[in-house]
Amino acid sequence: MNRSSGAILVLSGPSGAGKSSLINKIKDHIGPTYFSISTTTRAIREGEIDGVHYHFVTVDEFKKDIEQEMFLEYAIVHGNYYGTSLGPVKKALKEGKLVIFDIDVQGHDAVRNRLSDITTSVFITTPTLEELKKRLYTRSTDTQEVIEGRIEMAKREVQRISEYDFLVVNDDLEEASEILISIAKAARMKIPTLQINEFVHQWEEQS
Amino acid sequence: MNRSSGAILVLSGPSGAGKSSLINKIKDHIGPTYFSISTTTRAIREGEIDGVHYHFVTVDEFKKDIEQEMFLEYAIVHGNYYGTSLGPVKKALKEGKLVIFDIDVQGHDAVRNRLSDITTSVFITTPTLEELKKRLYTRSTDTQEVIEGRIEMAKREVQRISEYDFLVVNDDLEEASEILISIAKAARMKIPTLQINEFVHQWEEQS
Repeated sequence: MNRSSGAILVLSGPSGAGKSSLINKIKDHIGPTYFSISTTTRAIREGEIDGVHYHFVTVDEFKKDIEQEMFLEYAIVHGNYYGTSLGPVKKALKEGKLVIFDIDVQGHDAVRNRLSDITTSVFITTPTLEELKKRLYTRSTDTQEVIEGRIEMAKREVQRISEYDFLVVNDDLEEASEILISIAKAARMKIPTLQINEFVHQWEEQS
Repeated sequence: MNRSSGAILVLSGPSGAGKSSLINKIKDHIGPTYFSISTTTRAIREGEIDGVHYHFVTVDEFKKDIEQEMFLEYAIVHGNYYGTSLGPVKKALKEGKLVIFDIDVQGHDAVRNRLSDITTSVFITTPTLEELKKRLYTRSTDTQEVIEGRIEMAKREVQRISEYDFLVVNDDLEEASEILISIAKAARMKIPTLQINEFVHQWEEQS
């Protein structure tokens, strides 16, 4: 019974807060996981691989999937569709995996509404906005305009931290990953209400 | 900011599920903790120490504390008053400790209602009712009547598992303690809403 039947860990936070580094650091220490890959209609960028960074689809394909309720959540950001397909998530949950989502606050909201009993969510951020700016300008992979867009989005998202179960301030990568490992391990133990009802039923039966 | 400002871990579950053994096994692996000691009006039993097992008080003293709102929660069980005094809990939280409560479902309900943002709760039980009975009769520290009372109470409490964040089935002590350690470590990272609001405020200010 203590074997997990699959659970969800949502990671949100501004671009530049170090989510990818954190995920890389913890991924071998938290048991079997499935990293959810988003589906998008935006153009593929240099260096991106279809099926690794995103599932790239046409607007028509995306709209057809919306109609057929194939998405756990989807949204339009800067004119492009982004969504999470239900199929692979269901499969991974059935295999008892911890499904990890790297999604924004809108996405978190949608996942939380549909699968609250097995969802744990973490907001990851820098200690200050100043530090976020510094990191975004230092890594300089983006244009000035993109960076400014990210900063505006970060300001809006930070206002909604209290909707999350946990806040991890990524000041020290070692410390932050240790905290995230504990949270991920605990997240795996969330049990769907249905399964709890079944347990309670069986608990009494066998007497 | 990732330093915890104190949090609460509620452990419930039938007598005989092995809560005490579990607590003993994990207590040195989860950082600074304070084990809440209940206050009761029931008579002190042989081997019990005032201030260690319970704070033993008179009915008049207890009622005075109720009037002065000194309890986080209290209840009457088998004609005796049992309660959790607020003072030591507040002090421990202020010291950044994880406050651990070994209380029943009524107590959990009360703590959850008052301090939900920093509370994580775990229901600990045996794999089956049959196994619980076996353990209670084997340890034979109680009379037949007391054991039957415990079994009836267990049956009622198990119906409310879904009110808890986690269910830990104590089948294998090693496995159960490992799970509980992860949950306790994560529980410590729960941040009070007030402190999150303060963080959000400061996050933007310093820019």
